[in-house]
Amino acid sequence: MIRLYVDADLSRGNAEVRLTREQAHYLANVMRLKPGDELAVFNGRDGQAAAIVRDARAGVLETRAPATGFVACPDLWLVVALVKRGPLETIVEKATELGVRRILLTTTRRTNAERTNLDRQRKIAIEAAEQTGRMDAPELAGPERLDRLLDDWEPSRRLMFCDEAGDDPAAQWGGPGGRADPAWSGLAAEQAGGPWAVLIGPEGGFDPAERERLRGFAFVTPVTLGPRILRADTAAIAALTLWQAVLGDWRA
Amino acid sequence: MIRLYVDADLSRGNAEVRLTREQAHYLANVMRLKPGDELAVFNGRDGQAAAIVRDARAGVLETRAPATGFVACPDLWLVVALVKRGPLETIVEKATELGVRRILLTTTRRTNAERTNLDRQRKIAIEAAEQTGRMDAPELAGPERLDRLLDDWEPSRRLMFCDEAGDDPAAQWGGPGGRADPAWSGLAAEQAGGPWAVLIGPEGGFDPAERERLRGFAFVTPVTLGPRILRADTAAIAALTLWQAVLGDWRA
Repeated sequence: MIRLYVDADLSRGNAEVRLTREQAHYLANVMRLKPGDELAVFNGRDGQAAAIVRDARAGVLETRAPATGFVACPDLWLVVALVKRGPLETIVEKATELGVRRILLTTTRRTNAERTNLDRQRKIAIEAAEQTGRMDAPELAGPERLDRLLDDWEPSRRLMFCDEAGDDPAAQWGGPGGRADPAWSGLAAEQAGGPWAVLIGPEGGFDPAERERLRGFAFVTPVTLGPRILRADTAAIAALTLWQAVLGDWRA
Repeated sequence: MIRLYVDADLSRGNAEVRLTREQAHYLANVMRLKPGDELAVFNGRDGQAAAIVRDARAGVLETRAPATGFVACPDLWLVVALVKRGPLETIVEKATELGVRRILLTTTRRTNAERTNLDRQRKIAIEAAEQTGRMDAPELAGPERLDRLLDDWEPSRRLMFCDEAGDDPAAQWGGPGGRADPAWSGLAAEQAGGPWAVLIGPEGGFDPAERERLRGFAFVTPVTLGPRILRADTAAIAALTLWQAVLGDWRA
C-alpha cells in the first residue's frame, strides 16, 4: 500500500487532497495509478486516512473517511554534527525510522562541512516516514554552532552525549544482568517520558574544550558506545536504538 | 595512524611483512609513504604491531616489535538474508564496527537476490576492521539456504530472531526501569558469554512457515525492534547494538 505524507486537513472524510508535483509524477508515471486506485495519506497531526485517486497526473486525491490512529513519536531530538553527504543522508533516513521527532544539524570545532541542502534532507526524512509507517515526519533544522546551541539549551531537555573519546568507566553502557552500571541505570531512571536529545559528533570526535563543557552541564548524560571506533552514522543509529530500548517506545 | 590487516606472522619483531598489491598501491600512491614511515599492522591472531615501510611500491614492511594486545570480539555471528548491494555493504561494514565475529549470508523464501560477490564483501569487512580498531576481521560465508542452515544448527549457539512481523507482546524489547520484560530479561540471563547469532530477514520479512519453524526451536529468542518498520540495514545495526549492550562487550 502506497503511503504519502500530505499537507492537507485530514480530519474530515471526502476531502480533496492536492499532492505536490513530485508526488503526482510518482503516482502517475512511476506507480501508474488510475482513478479509483487506493492509497493512504497522513499529515503529521490527524493520523492516517484511506484515499482514492481522482486524477493521478494532476495530483488530486479524495479521502474516504476522517484520518485516525495518530501516534506521536517520543519527544526525542537528534543533534548531529554535519558530516559528508552520504553518511548524513543515512543518518536522516535511519533517525526517521528510529522515531526521532526533530533532527538538528550542528557544527562543532572539528566539523569540516559547513552547510547542507536542508530541503533535500527534508525529502529524505519524508520518504523514510512514509515507508516506516510513522504518523509524522521529523522536523529538520540548522545547522547551528554547537556552542551557541548549548548557550540557549532548555535544561529540561536532557542530552545523551555520545563521547567517542570517553574514558570515564562510569559513562560506559552496560546491560542489566546483575552488574551495576551508573550510566545505563541513570538513563533508565531519569525522566523517562520527558524530553531528550541524543548528540552525535563529527568523525573526528569532539574537541577537549567541547567535551569539558558538555560534561559540566547537569542536563548531560555522557555515554560511550563500546570499545571500537564507530563512524558517525553507526554511532547515531546505535545511540538512538539504545535510547528507544531504555527510554522510548521500544519498551514493552 | 594507518592500520593494515595483513596475512603474516607478527609474533616476532623485525619480521618482514609483504602486503597485497592493493595495499602497496594504497601506501605508495594514495598515502605516499616513504621508507621509514610508520604504520600499524594486525593479523587477527597476534594483536597489533608497529611497522616501518621498507619499500611502499613493492609492499614491503618490517615490524619493530612483536604484536601485542590481541582482544577477540564476542562470539557473535550475524546471519543476514541477502538484500540489495547497497544495504548489504552497509550491513557488512556496520556489523564489523559492531564487533561481529562471522557474517553468514542466507537466502530465505522472500529473498530476491541469490548471490553476491563475497570477495568484495570481505574487502569491505577488512577495511572496516582496519578503521574501527578491532584486532581481527569477521569471517564471511554463504549464501546458504535458511532451511538448510537451521537443519545443521548447533543448538548451543543461541539465535536472536528479529521478527519484523512479531505480534507476540512477550517478545517485545523493553528496558529495565522497573518494568517486567520477558525478552529483555531472557537475553540478559541466558548464556551471556556463550555463542550467539543475530538473524535478520529480507526487506519483506520472513514467510509464516519460516517464522513458525524459528519460534519452535529452543535455541531461538524472538525479539521485535519497536513499533516502526525498519529497513534490513537499520534492523541489523539496531539488533547488534542491543546484543552488545546487553550481552556483549558494550557492558561495563
